[in-house]
Amino acid sequence: MNQFPPLQTSKRILMGPGPSDAHPRVLQALATPLIGHLDPEFVGLMDEIKQMVQLTFQTQNPLTFVVSAPGTAGMETCLVNLLEPGDEALICIHGVFGGRMADIAERCGAKVTKVEAPWGESIDPQQVKAALENINPKLIAIVHAETSTGVLQPLEEISQMAKDAGALLVVDAVTSYCGTEVKVDEWGIDAIYTGTQKCLSAPPGLSPVSFSEKAVEAMDRRKTKVQSWFLDLTLVKNYWSGQKRAYHHTAPVSAMYGLREAYRVVLEEGLEARFARHHENHLYLKEQLEALGFEFLVKEAFRLPMLNTVKIPDGIDDATTRSRLLNEFNIEIGGGLGKFAGKVWRIGLMGESCTRTHVNQLIAALKQIM
Amino acid sequence: MNQFPPLQTSKRILMGPGPSDAHPRVLQALATPLIGHLDPEFVGLMDEIKQMVQLTFQTQNPLTFVVSAPGTAGMETCLVNLLEPGDEALICIHGVFGGRMADIAERCGAKVTKVEAPWGESIDPQQVKAALENINPKLIAIVHAETSTGVLQPLEEISQMAKDAGALLVVDAVTSYCGTEVKVDEWGIDAIYTGTQKCLSAPPGLSPVSFSEKAVEAMDRRKTKVQSWFLDLTLVKNYWSGQKRAYHHTAPVSAMYGLREAYRVVLEEGLEARFARHHENHLYLKEQLEALGFEFLVKEAFRLPMLNTVKIPDGIDDATTRSRLLNEFNIEIGGGLGKFAGKVWRIGLMGESCTRTHVNQLIAALKQIM
Repeated sequence: MNQFPPLQTSKRILMGPGPSDAHPRVLQALATPLIGHLDPEFVGLMDEIKQMVQLTFQTQNPLTFVVSAPGTAGMETCLVNLLEPGDEALICIHGVFGGRMADIAERCGAKVTKVEAPWGESIDPQQVKAALENINPKLIAIVHAETSTGVLQPLEEISQMAKDAGALLVVDAVTSYCGTEVKVDEWGIDAIYTGTQKCLSAPPGLSPVSFSEKAVEAMDRRKTKVQSWFLDLTLVKNYWSGQKRAYHHTAPVSAMYGLREAYRVVLEEGLEARFARHHENHLYLKEQLEALGFEFLVKEAFRLPMLNTVKIPDGIDDATTRSRLLNEFNIEIGGGLGKFAGKVWRIGLMGESCTRTHVNQLIAALKQIM
Repeated sequence: MNQFPPLQTSKRILMGPGPSDAHPRVLQALATPLIGHLDPEFVGLMDEIKQMVQLTFQTQNPLTFVVSAPGTAGMETCLVNLLEPGDEALICIHGVFGGRMADIAERCGAKVTKVEAPWGESIDPQQVKAALENINPKLIAIVHAETSTGVLQPLEEISQMAKDAGALLVVDAVTSYCGTEVKVDEWGIDAIYTGTQKCLSAPPGLSPVSFSEKAVEAMDRRKTKVQSWFLDLTLVKNYWSGQKRAYHHTAPVSAMYGLREAYRVVLEEGLEARFARHHENHLYLKEQLEALGFEFLVKEAFRLPMLNTVKIPDGIDDATTRSRLLNEFNIEIGGGLGKFAGKVWRIGLMGESCTRTHVNQLIAALKQIM
C-alpha cells in the first residue's frame, strides 16, 4: 500500500567535485541509534569533534566548530558574522565560489571591492596589493581551492598583506581541506569554512569552521545584530562550548556520528600521508589522462591534486560521454560550472575516492568510450 | 594511534522534545552508499521526497521541498523570503519559538507587532483581531505546536482573519507535523516549516517547508534581495524543480535517504492512524502520570498529544531526577526551556517513541525514583 518503493541506488564510483565515496565505517556510524542532542554523551561527542576540527585545520582557535548545514552555510556564517552594513570587503574572485562570496557580502550590506582573475588562473598577490592602495577593508576573502576551476590559490603572501592592512583574512577551504595543506594558524587565517563531502569523505551537509581571536574581537565590536539568527555565532557558540550548553538548534545527530568516524579515518592515516596520497594519485591520473590526449586547464604550479580540470577534447560530447560513464560504468565525474559548462570536466580524487584503482577504472572506461 | 575511540553510545529511550527514536529501517537507509547530488537517481529521490512532503502537509503547493538544515533554518527560510525591510509583521508569541520568530523578523528589518499569551496558554483569536485594527501586516506568524510549553494552537479562526486582512499566514508545525492534523491547504496556510526529528522520526537536520501561490506571488514582488544566499528561494527552487536542476548547494545525501525511509514508514501507517496512535498514547500517559500525582501545565483542550508538559512536583529535584532517568534507565525526557527551566518536564511521545511500551517504561522508572 505504499506508492514509494524501498530505497534502491546504484553503486556509484564518485569522481566528481563531491560527494566522494564514504568509508564503510562512516556509513556504519550513520546507522547508530540516535541519542538526544543535549545528552551528556552527545555533548562529549561535540567536544571530540571540535578537537578533530582543530587538528585538521591545524589551529588552536577556541571558536572552532561545525555549522549544522552545508559548506555554503559555512561561507555565509563567516561573512554574516564579520560584516556589518557599510563595512568594506575585498573579495577575490577566480571562479564560481569567489563570486558567491561577493554576492553574500553584498547581501550583508558591505561595500564590496572585487579583485578578479580569469577563470583557471589564480589571483596575483600584486592585484590585492594594488587594490589595498585605494581601500581599507575590514576583510579580504579568497578561495583556497576553486572547485569550479581546479585552481589552488597560494595564500601566504596575501595573508601578510591582509595583516599589514589590518584586515581579516577569510578563506574558503571546501575542496582543499584534508587533501592538501591548510594551516590556519601558521598562515594567519582569521575565518575559514569547509565542507565534509570532499577530501574528508563524510556525507555532505555539514561545514567545519574556525575563527581567530582577531575575528572574535571583530565580532565582539559589532554594532548591529547578525542578520541570520541560525548562523549568529553569539548564540551558536554557547551551544558548542561552555559549562552548560545553551539550546540553540537541534544538531544533526546522525550526521555528526558519520563526521566523527570520518575524522577518525583521517587521523589514523595522518594528515601528511593523506596529502601525499592525494598528490601521488593526482600525478598518476595526470600521466594517464595526458596519454589519452587530455589537456589540463590550469598551469601545473597551481593545480589542485584532488580536483583535476581538463578541457573536453574536440569531437567529444560532454553530456553524452558523462552519461555513458555514469550509466555504463557507474562512474561520476563533474561537468563544468557556469562559463565552463560544456567546456571542461572536473575529475575528483578526494578522500576515499583518491586511489590508484579509481584512476584505473576511469581511464579504462574513457578508453572504451572514446 | 588514534586518540579518539570508536563511537560508542548508550541505547537511549528518547522521550524528550526530539529527536525521537528512529525506526531501524531509517537507520539502515542512512548507511546506504552515497551517490552524487546531481545524479539522475538522486534527482528522482528529491522528486519523490517532494511528493512525500506534499502528502504529509496535505497540500498541492508546487513550492514544497526540504531545507538542507534544521527546523530553525526552515523558520528563517519562511521569514527572510517573505519579509523585506519596513514590512509589517504580526507575530504571535506563547513560548520560546514564537519569540524566536519575532527575533528573526526583526533581523529582516520588519516592523514587528507582538501578540502575546502567557506561556502554557494559546493565543486567543480575539487578540489577533484587536491587533489587526491598528496595523495592516504583510504576514501573521504563529506556532501551531509550542515545543516549549506543550500547547496546541487552533489555527482556523486566525487563518480566516489573516485572509480577511490580506495577510499571509506563516505557521511553525515543527512538533505537530505527522503526529496530529496539519492541513496546509484546507487551513489556508501560506508558509509552513517543520522538523524531521519529532513525529516523523527521522534524524534531526532537515526542515520540510511549503509555500502557497500567494506566498510565491509575494516573493515575486520583492524589491530587495533575500538577505540569506543559502536560504534564498529564488535560487533554491531551481535546485528542487525544473527540467534541468541548477546547482545551488550540495544536498545532504545520506540524511535524505533516511528522510525518505521515514516518510515511507509514515505513509505505510497512514496519517489518520498515526494521529490516532499519538492521541491514544497521550491519553494513556496522562492517566498514568495523573495517578502518580502529576499535574499538566496546559488546559485539556489545548494539549499537544506528542509533547506532554507536566509541573515538577514539590520536593522533586529536576536535574537529579532527569539524570537518574537517563543514567539508570536510559530514558531521556526534556526539561523546561527559558522561564520554565526547573519548573516543568516535557515528555515526548513522538513517532517511533509513541508506544504504550515507552509509557510503561517511563512510568516504571518514575515509580522507582520517586
